[in-house]
Amino acid sequence: MAITMYDLAGADADRRFSPFCWRARMALAHKGLEVETVPWRFTEKDKLPQPSQGRVPVIRDGDRVVHDSTAIADYLEERYPDRPSLYGGEVGRGLTRFVQNWTDTVLQVGLIRLVVLDIHRHIGPADQAYFRKSREERFGTTLEEVVKDREARLPAFRASLDPLRRTVERQNFIAGGAPAYADYVVFGAFQWARSISDFELLAEDDPVRAWRGRLLDLYGGLARKTRAYGT
Amino acid sequence: MAITMYDLAGADADRRFSPFCWRARMALAHKGLEVETVPWRFTEKDKLPQPSQGRVPVIRDGDRVVHDSTAIADYLEERYPDRPSLYGGEVGRGLTRFVQNWTDTVLQVGLIRLVVLDIHRHIGPADQAYFRKSREERFGTTLEEVVKDREARLPAFRASLDPLRRTVERQNFIAGGAPAYADYVVFGAFQWARSISDFELLAEDDPVRAWRGRLLDLYGGLARKTRAYGT
Repeated sequence: MAITMYDLAGADADRRFSPFCWRARMALAHKGLEVETVPWRFTEKDKLPQPSQGRVPVIRDGDRVVHDSTAIADYLEERYPDRPSLYGGEVGRGLTRFVQNWTDTVLQVGLIRLVVLDIHRHIGPADQAYFRKSREERFGTTLEEVVKDREARLPAFRASLDPLRRTVERQNFIAGGAPAYADYVVFGAFQWARSISDFELLAEDDPVRAWRGRLLDLYGGLARKTRAYGT
Repeated sequence: MAITMYDLAGADADRRFSPFCWRARMALAHKGLEVETVPWRFTEKDKLPQPSQGRVPVIRDGDRVVHDSTAIADYLEERYPDRPSLYGGEVGRGLTRFVQNWTDTVLQVGLIRLVVLDIHRHIGPADQAYFRKSREERFGTTLEEVVKDREARLPAFRASLDPLRRTVERQNFIAGGAPAYADYVVFGAFQWARSISDFELLAEDDPVRAWRGRLLDLYGGLARKTRAYGT
């Protein structure tokens, strides 16, 4: 029986734009597991398996319900040990947390300030009201103000990618010669951006862009198949 | 026969302050290998095994001479596969490169601007002339100017440690439950700083400070035994 995954969607159900859901989606593909995704919107808290934290991703695998992308990766690794490993062992799991913490505190923090208004444009009216209110409280200003000078901030954002850039210009994936969960964590952020924004984050010749292309090609072009912008 | 390691030293031969040499020194200890270090100064280019790049660390293991901390770690991992692994496999090796690139482009870039003048204070006269000239060319200004507003820059430096902080507040080491080469890479930067500077980089209650303490305790307190400041 296929695993069910609740996946954040825009007004268009094919627009899947949660970075955390992309982590889980790619992890499921890495393990070669069949999945049926259920498009879910910010304001549909009661449509998730209960008890719920009101957030996605959530997966249902037979009787088991697992919330949170990190818990899902750990669950898949433990439940399906004979399939390709997400971490490559305990050191790999530990170091993946570092990559994840960099993604959460540097990459996604930089990204949201570039594309937050684009998210708002691609969600339905009920979600728009929720999203604007919750995010404007968080930023202490309007969404329009947050992104206003984004062109000017682009060079600093690109510079913040140096650790990633230097890594993927010397090896094909963050995890080395083959992709692993750490790649999906970082990729989730870029896939989030390209799902809802035509703002080009990466220069044409940026090694990060070539790496993103390699991730887009994985698993039969899985991440290319949903509604998104650009390459 | 013990491995010989050429190790950057200050005017005081017990002051070992190269972050790259600390990476190698901790890697050797991790592998449980005996080592004799040779104190080496910036201006002693001709005292290294030739052909040389004029930089340390360099190790001599029997007939083999290996230059560069990354090459040394790879060499030790391959030459001594039955001893504790530095990477924990190929995924771990790949992800270690990411941690290393973060260390090189974020952590050490931030650190040098806080402590570069302290380095100058702890090296001999010939090295001082070389060091001041080469570093002032690199920075385009005097060493005094580089560090002048370091108190004001400390909060931004501490904020730049967020990926590290969040990792080591949730697990004992960057590599997870036990230390691996990625820990030594990051630790090398902090050990460099405390070898030559009494400028306190970390708040008393910073989880990064507790992690640094765990690294200082490893291998019989190896890194506590050289000349250094503070905790």
